[in-house]
Amino acid sequence: MAKKACPLCKTDGEEILFQNDLYRIIAVNDTAWPGFCRVILNRHAAEMTDLPIEDRSTLMKAVWVVESALRDFMQPTKINLASLGNVVPHVHWHVIPRWADDTHFPDPIWAPAKRPTSTVRAEPNHAALARILSEYLA
Amino acid sequence: MAKKACPLCKTDGEEILFQNDLYRIIAVNDTAWPGFCRVILNRHAAEMTDLPIEDRSTLMKAVWVVESALRDFMQPTKINLASLGNVVPHVHWHVIPRWADDTHFPDPIWAPAKRPTSTVRAEPNHAALARILSEYLA
Repeated sequence: MAKKACPLCKTDGEEILFQNDLYRIIAVNDTAWPGFCRVILNRHAAEMTDLPIEDRSTLMKAVWVVESALRDFMQPTKINLASLGNVVPHVHWHVIPRWADDTHFPDPIWAPAKRPTSTVRAEPNHAALARILSEYLA
Repeated sequence: MAKKACPLCKTDGEEILFQNDLYRIIAVNDTAWPGFCRVILNRHAAEMTDLPIEDRSTLMKAVWVVESALRDFMQPTKINLASLGNVVPHVHWHVIPRWADDTHFPDPIWAPAKRPTSTVRAEPNHAALARILSEYLA
């Protein structure tokens, strides 16, 4: 994908919870997946192994802090982590809280749904989440 | 999941390419996904953030080395990385080479297939892969 066509090289419409020179952390705001966050590399690179090792570590530290915060805020059954990028080959990590009664559990969110929505969960408080991310990552 | 019922607390039937005290790297040997490897934590823990930071880093280094080796050996269109664990909540990383003409591309491998198999690809040479993993991780 040419860099100028890459949607993740722009931040249009994103709700950014935390950012620095290397990456930004956004709230996905998908009602189907409350708490879903993404850690997005700011510059354009396709694979983790395209990055210097220091940048990989810094990016993963952000993923761990998001995972920890989502576990604290939401007590999910499981956290799912994925860096896929087949559609948009620009490094980004999905951090997805999952619950045993969610529409797809235990399948990945990309599989067909197994059941209708049962428990409706709210988004975590984004201001509080942003404060925690800043506390551990700034 | 009780530890004694956890299938990843055993190594039965696994083709181990590299192992140390912390983790093992296995060839999944799924003809649908040539080159698919897993990095599996040896001890039982559900989430990356259940591990000390040093162990997370050591595990991710293994993921990066597997990713690099698979890129070198197979020149995939993209590498997919995922730590899900909804079915088996024991830390393990999927490292999956993907090609633009594979059955599911650009969707994740867990989505419904989009097309029949076109190009049939062979597994990378496991002995050569094991040598590379050992060179970088031992």
